[in-house]
Amino acid sequence: MTTATITSYLSEHRERHLEELIDLLSVPSVSALPAHNADTLRAAEWMSESLRKLGMENVALHPTKGHPIVYGDWLHAGEDKPTVLIYGHYDVQPVDPLHLWDTPPFEPAIREERIYARGASDDKGQTFMHIKALEAVLATTGTLPFNFKFCIEGEEEVGSPNLPAFIEQNKEMLAADVVVVSDTSMIEEDKPTICYGLRGMCGFQLDVKGPKRDLHSGLYGGAVANPIHAVVELLASFHDGDGVVTVDGFYDKVVPLTSEEKAAFEAIGFDEAVVKEEVGVQEFYGEKGYSFYERTWVRPTLEINGVYGGFQGDGIKTVLPSEAHAKITCRLVPDQDPDEILALLQEHVTMHKPAGVEVTVSLFDKGAPFVTPFNHPAIQAASRAFEKVWEVPTTFTRGGGSLPIVSTLDEVLQAPIVLMGFGLPSDNVHAPNENFKLKNFDKGLLTLCAYWEELAAALDVE
Amino acid sequence: MTTATITSYLSEHRERHLEELIDLLSVPSVSALPAHNADTLRAAEWMSESLRKLGMENVALHPTKGHPIVYGDWLHAGEDKPTVLIYGHYDVQPVDPLHLWDTPPFEPAIREERIYARGASDDKGQTFMHIKALEAVLATTGTLPFNFKFCIEGEEEVGSPNLPAFIEQNKEMLAADVVVVSDTSMIEEDKPTICYGLRGMCGFQLDVKGPKRDLHSGLYGGAVANPIHAVVELLASFHDGDGVVTVDGFYDKVVPLTSEEKAAFEAIGFDEAVVKEEVGVQEFYGEKGYSFYERTWVRPTLEINGVYGGFQGDGIKTVLPSEAHAKITCRLVPDQDPDEILALLQEHVTMHKPAGVEVTVSLFDKGAPFVTPFNHPAIQAASRAFEKVWEVPTTFTRGGGSLPIVSTLDEVLQAPIVLMGFGLPSDNVHAPNENFKLKNFDKGLLTLCAYWEELAAALDVE
Repeated sequence: MTTATITSYLSEHRERHLEELIDLLSVPSVSALPAHNADTLRAAEWMSESLRKLGMENVALHPTKGHPIVYGDWLHAGEDKPTVLIYGHYDVQPVDPLHLWDTPPFEPAIREERIYARGASDDKGQTFMHIKALEAVLATTGTLPFNFKFCIEGEEEVGSPNLPAFIEQNKEMLAADVVVVSDTSMIEEDKPTICYGLRGMCGFQLDVKGPKRDLHSGLYGGAVANPIHAVVELLASFHDGDGVVTVDGFYDKVVPLTSEEKAAFEAIGFDEAVVKEEVGVQEFYGEKGYSFYERTWVRPTLEINGVYGGFQGDGIKTVLPSEAHAKITCRLVPDQDPDEILALLQEHVTMHKPAGVEVTVSLFDKGAPFVTPFNHPAIQAASRAFEKVWEVPTTFTRGGGSLPIVSTLDEVLQAPIVLMGFGLPSDNVHAPNENFKLKNFDKGLLTLCAYWEELAAALDVE
Repeated sequence: MTTATITSYLSEHRERHLEELIDLLSVPSVSALPAHNADTLRAAEWMSESLRKLGMENVALHPTKGHPIVYGDWLHAGEDKPTVLIYGHYDVQPVDPLHLWDTPPFEPAIREERIYARGASDDKGQTFMHIKALEAVLATTGTLPFNFKFCIEGEEEVGSPNLPAFIEQNKEMLAADVVVVSDTSMIEEDKPTICYGLRGMCGFQLDVKGPKRDLHSGLYGGAVANPIHAVVELLASFHDGDGVVTVDGFYDKVVPLTSEEKAAFEAIGFDEAVVKEEVGVQEFYGEKGYSFYERTWVRPTLEINGVYGGFQGDGIKTVLPSEAHAKITCRLVPDQDPDEILALLQEHVTMHKPAGVEVTVSLFDKGAPFVTPFNHPAIQAASRAFEKVWEVPTTFTRGGGSLPIVSTLDEVLQAPIVLMGFGLPSDNVHAPNENFKLKNFDKGLLTLCAYWEELAAALDVE
């Protein structure tokens, strides 16, 4: 295949592709709302039908306790060839507040070179692009360089409650050498971006119990331990004055950045004034010797997300409360293990438990950190594909947040994960007037086609 | 006057006295409820009428923005004689939940030697006793050993909002050498008790402001100061691990207990197991080397009454909140000055303000601590009066709470305050089935009469 052939195929079929996309975006597949269950199913069927037309085999809607998972594969590259798994989702966020939409969320409208509809960017539009890119490669070359598998779920917007079990139970069927996910955004317009790692998470709630009922602070204060005093003492023990986590062993397994990664992050540039204005702070804060990106992407954190106890109304109430509480989450980086970190945290709580109160620790769900090595051929091939189409250097990032499903894919399938996102910060995902820029749709299709070519070269596939 | 004459007078007139008391307790003078404004006024008029009948002069209802203050005096002891001011209140607490009352709260009922009605103990019953004791002294001796003034307010149960200004504006009219208040309880049955000091109070709210909006803790955690981290660090800085307040200069003006006071508190006895069971704790807590009574009565405290920030719902929300808050009150003891302590606290906050956040301190209302010296003749005379009637040693206590109005009387009138309370812990004040034990009514009347005699001797009044 040549770039020229692909370009002309995509150009010729652009109108039809957009018509198909409009059709897909017209289905109100809001997974959170039971009233839309039939619509959500319809989107699943639309996806499976589209896969069938593409020439995928074993196409099926795999039932779950919630919305079904669409699977399909094309395994004709041969057993000796690598396999690529493409993950996406056909469900969308709710649309409230509806009155803020300029055009109805499920009546896709093109204006100013953007297509407006719920799901245009997140993630129906981007999942659709994968199907159309493979259509173009098949149409122009008659074959595909790898075996391909699609796994398109319908519950991403409600936290993917059923996907982990599905992956675990079907790991043979889903086995792959590379996993590609297009459900993220570029850092800014015309800056193609590869996010090659995300932080993991673990968290817990602290419940501190003192006297059996609220007491009058004048009558008992000074003689009965106050659960608020205990909780603030315990919480304050988690950090030193510079924001460094003081839990024993917390940083032991943290993998330092390579010099290539450091250089890649420095190349991004960071407009401190803009970010300060955006979040409304005078100064940043955190571990000395680390940049903003390092602090939020590659350093682990312990963040107190909530604290509460005693009186919260206006004015004063002289109470010594019976209870106080806190909610805490840690962001984890390779090679921290959530279970190991939770054990360290529990040990810390035991060691620092103030006298006179009982402290209970309740664990929340957890997720491992994930990183595909920066220099992995699958990452570097993606970078070259972006640069070929966009004609600028690819930006490499890692993410401060967590995508539990990516951790699961990573853990169960043990394959490198490539996050090739074509969205933009201006796409309004999860908000009114979600849209997808047509330039990103067009160039994204070209990038995906280029990726398969670059990846084939990198993996030495004839 | 002789004890025998007084005893026989009170005995002869007991039936009438109880009828009058029942009449007074029938008036539903609930100061908190506007629907009872006419009733509350009726109670004020009842009191003023009763004072007139007693022979008090200058009896008047002094209007306030709320309920009027009843004043009356008898100044015929002569200018060279001491003046006693009796403070009481004619208003009562609301009665909810009404269904828990065995007999209606404003239909006084005598059963098992107790009179049941809202206000029986707090404080109509006890205020009434002062009027009847003076009636008995006047009737049996034809005169009174001191000049007497009554100040009976109608807003004690709603925090006495108008009394401080009234006292300030009428300090000549209210000037006295001794102030007597009967609005407290004995520590237990048959243990006459004098509470000779109360703690003062000052308090403030801490508002910690970080980013201008709530942030995603995965995207910004570790690089933007978290207001919860700041508030817990600041709050934890107020105490050391043993519950000692670490604010510089906090204890500088604390007057240590005398050995007589220490002995008096030790004489009370303290059933640790009972109090632990009552509040539901395994162990007490606080400054080393101090007893429970010392910790709660004569040591100052800094108590965090509330803390809140971020997420408080079920489960987890990965938020780095924009704000966090705390409410703090200190209990103060002689000779701590609320304004000085507030200045020290503000200095502490300034010194310990964590980086990256703004901290605002808002002050609450304050009240000075009060103590009438243990060895003051007015206190010791009260003790002898109690012992004469009850035939057991008087228990001396101080209170951990604060009664702002007592502080005001103390500050403005500069007279010793004697808290002679005849209530019992079983009186159910502020609760359903409030009652007053008739034994305490009878012995209390005798005690008051004995007090004027003992006080006259102590103050060397012919």
